[in-house]
Amino acid sequence: MKHADILIIDAWVLTMDAQRREFNPGYLAINGSQITAAGPMAEATAWTAAQTLDAKGGIVLPGLINTHTHAAMTCFRGMADDLPLMDWLQDHIFPAEARLDHDQVKTGTLLACAEMILSGTTCFCDMYLFEDAVAEAAHQAGMRAVVGEVLYDFPSPNYGPIEAGFAYTEQMVAKWRDDPLITIAVEPHSPYLCAPDLLRRAGEMARRHDMPLVIHLAETRSEVETIQERYGVTPVGHLANLDLLYPGLLACHGVMLTDDDMDLLQSHDVKIAHNAESNMKLASGIAPVPQLLARGICVSLGTDGCASNNNLDLMSEMDTVAKLHKVNTLDPTVLDAETVLGMATIEGARALGLADRIGSLEPGKDADVILIDTRQPHLTPLYHPASHLVYAARGGDVSTSIINGQIVMENRELRTLDRERVMEDVHRLARAICAELPDAVGR
Amino acid sequence: MKHADILIIDAWVLTMDAQRREFNPGYLAINGSQITAAGPMAEATAWTAAQTLDAKGGIVLPGLINTHTHAAMTCFRGMADDLPLMDWLQDHIFPAEARLDHDQVKTGTLLACAEMILSGTTCFCDMYLFEDAVAEAAHQAGMRAVVGEVLYDFPSPNYGPIEAGFAYTEQMVAKWRDDPLITIAVEPHSPYLCAPDLLRRAGEMARRHDMPLVIHLAETRSEVETIQERYGVTPVGHLANLDLLYPGLLACHGVMLTDDDMDLLQSHDVKIAHNAESNMKLASGIAPVPQLLARGICVSLGTDGCASNNNLDLMSEMDTVAKLHKVNTLDPTVLDAETVLGMATIEGARALGLADRIGSLEPGKDADVILIDTRQPHLTPLYHPASHLVYAARGGDVSTSIINGQIVMENRELRTLDRERVMEDVHRLARAICAELPDAVGR
Repeated sequence: MKHADILIIDAWVLTMDAQRREFNPGYLAINGSQITAAGPMAEATAWTAAQTLDAKGGIVLPGLINTHTHAAMTCFRGMADDLPLMDWLQDHIFPAEARLDHDQVKTGTLLACAEMILSGTTCFCDMYLFEDAVAEAAHQAGMRAVVGEVLYDFPSPNYGPIEAGFAYTEQMVAKWRDDPLITIAVEPHSPYLCAPDLLRRAGEMARRHDMPLVIHLAETRSEVETIQERYGVTPVGHLANLDLLYPGLLACHGVMLTDDDMDLLQSHDVKIAHNAESNMKLASGIAPVPQLLARGICVSLGTDGCASNNNLDLMSEMDTVAKLHKVNTLDPTVLDAETVLGMATIEGARALGLADRIGSLEPGKDADVILIDTRQPHLTPLYHPASHLVYAARGGDVSTSIINGQIVMENRELRTLDRERVMEDVHRLARAICAELPDAVGR
Repeated sequence: MKHADILIIDAWVLTMDAQRREFNPGYLAINGSQITAAGPMAEATAWTAAQTLDAKGGIVLPGLINTHTHAAMTCFRGMADDLPLMDWLQDHIFPAEARLDHDQVKTGTLLACAEMILSGTTCFCDMYLFEDAVAEAAHQAGMRAVVGEVLYDFPSPNYGPIEAGFAYTEQMVAKWRDDPLITIAVEPHSPYLCAPDLLRRAGEMARRHDMPLVIHLAETRSEVETIQERYGVTPVGHLANLDLLYPGLLACHGVMLTDDDMDLLQSHDVKIAHNAESNMKLASGIAPVPQLLARGICVSLGTDGCASNNNLDLMSEMDTVAKLHKVNTLDPTVLDAETVLGMATIEGARALGLADRIGSLEPGKDADVILIDTRQPHLTPLYHPASHLVYAARGGDVSTSIINGQIVMENRELRTLDRERVMEDVHRLARAICAELPDAVGR
């Protein structure tokens, strides 16, 4: 007999491997932090296990990967909506962010981790202030995370001058070097908030340490106009001139892209984090995702921060992405369910440089696994699992989540976080924001 | 002391009345089938109650109204997606529909009722075959429904020739006349599947009995081209020529509308059921909702059938609607949360001619009421309830639903339907479809 620490049985297993193999009914075996086997149920009889999880016919798939978040912005969820972009930022978000500190960012991120785990996300890539607090929160939650302190030209409420921002990033690298779940990234905000020198230096640091380089790129028309005015090129062209286009770059948004931009992204194997719901809510535009995919460019999914979404639910994001590009191209065949599910899993892993470790259910990979409870009216009947995951399911349908072999949620109960305390801490923070900044909250 | 049958306490009450009054913390009193009072919690002490529901700070609002469904199509949920429209219809949906009967439509509709109740919908407007079975299912579920047998030029799998279709509709009128929850409508399919004579006769019948007249209108470019070719006018112009534009007409979709069409809809006070997610998934286009609203035209929400959505979750639909029109107009201020919430409640009631009875929480109205459990990570913190309902909540956040004074769900438990049996019946039907029509199911 073979022995597993965790054996998941009676599941419709979507491996998301290169052949997109499925086992129905199937099983999955986990030993320590790794997947050791996946296959048809008939083979499960060869296994004993310390713990057996009966999926009862539900779907088992790789944990979802959210490649663009500002996790701590859960604090500002629904604080101000439906406003012109500059009013929203200057009268609401910036005043609220100016009063943040390390502890508050941790408080907001713990809530984000709770929400993400409860909706099937097992790994996220974050950009914000006080990112060491984000790493601490992810560590406490048992989540996999790529985190990077936001770098820009003006003084940061966290580190002050940019010099200290690079030092802060270096300190995070040293602190989290041996953590199995935390990866530190270099994260300059954007071409419009970062001078060429800052960008060049960020690129050098990322390549020197072999760290991911993450940036907002070509998000809005106003950004394109600003960069065109300053440098005479598009934002993508600007990064090309700075020699910053390379396979380790994750460009978030990519809404405003020319054909030449896409040629550049393709030839340098740059990765794109697509944030459909945020781009819709902020009225930024619709990224040319079908064209990017047709060029073979890696496109992953992100929710962006809660203030512009207003949740971190990748199940909902998949649904929106699949539908948005159909209506935008007037072609119901683009971005089919299987493609979009790939964007939320294996392509997310590729975008973060983690495809050798996560993103599919294969022996030797780290065990980031989620179970979907399909015994619900809105998931009945069940013809094709990918269809349900993209078009019918919601985050609340995830019953159990495993990250790096650890069960972080089982039957909707969080194992690593105190749900009530995490919520109460954010309620307390929100009450303080309401008291101190009534105008920002709009009441 | 005043006495209530049901007293809801400690809620953030959104009345959705003309002044959009809110009570926080507030209470709501129900006696028999009607709302008798709503107000601030301080006044709740004047009441005793047979049953008290403690909302624990959650949101209480009118039940959501889904103004366009083909409820029984839950049977085909996820059976075939991401296909060209004509392939999807002719190779998948039509073959599966050809084998339907009264009992199967009832089976599918019972599942739809379970799903709708579980996601906060208390009233739906349905068009399909064997609609008497839909009325029976709604009656069994305790749901409010407007139902109408689909009428078209070719022989129906239900009634055969069109003559019998009108007779079937008349029989439903007689059968359900005294039911407090069921309203029978006249429902010709569309201008392209119904000859002018059929349409004229349907209109006469609707006006004679003061029944709602429901039709698919201007859904696709292909429809517009067909009608233009046949009659030399737009679909809206065609109905105008037949004298069918009047306040009792509910036009579903309204995707392809000219300015002249919108003038006609406005001047005749025609109601529009907007089906954003279905229009996106089928790549039909984006209805000009901001322009319709600017003209004061009543626009309500619909999910359309499950085969083109793939759920009946109006919470998710609200989110999509609010975001889609922002990105489509590149204006983040259009369709704010309060407006979209109105479309799903009081405007839905107006669209169905039921605004004197439902759609807002006011004394004397029928008690269609839902409670949202906001004590969840993805609904934390809580600054503005409308924002959460539109941008963050999902159907699964509805804890309790009341229809016409009857609690049909309490703490996520269905009271009127046997959840497991309803699901098992549809699973059995789906297995039969898979066995008999493997090509239609695509496996």
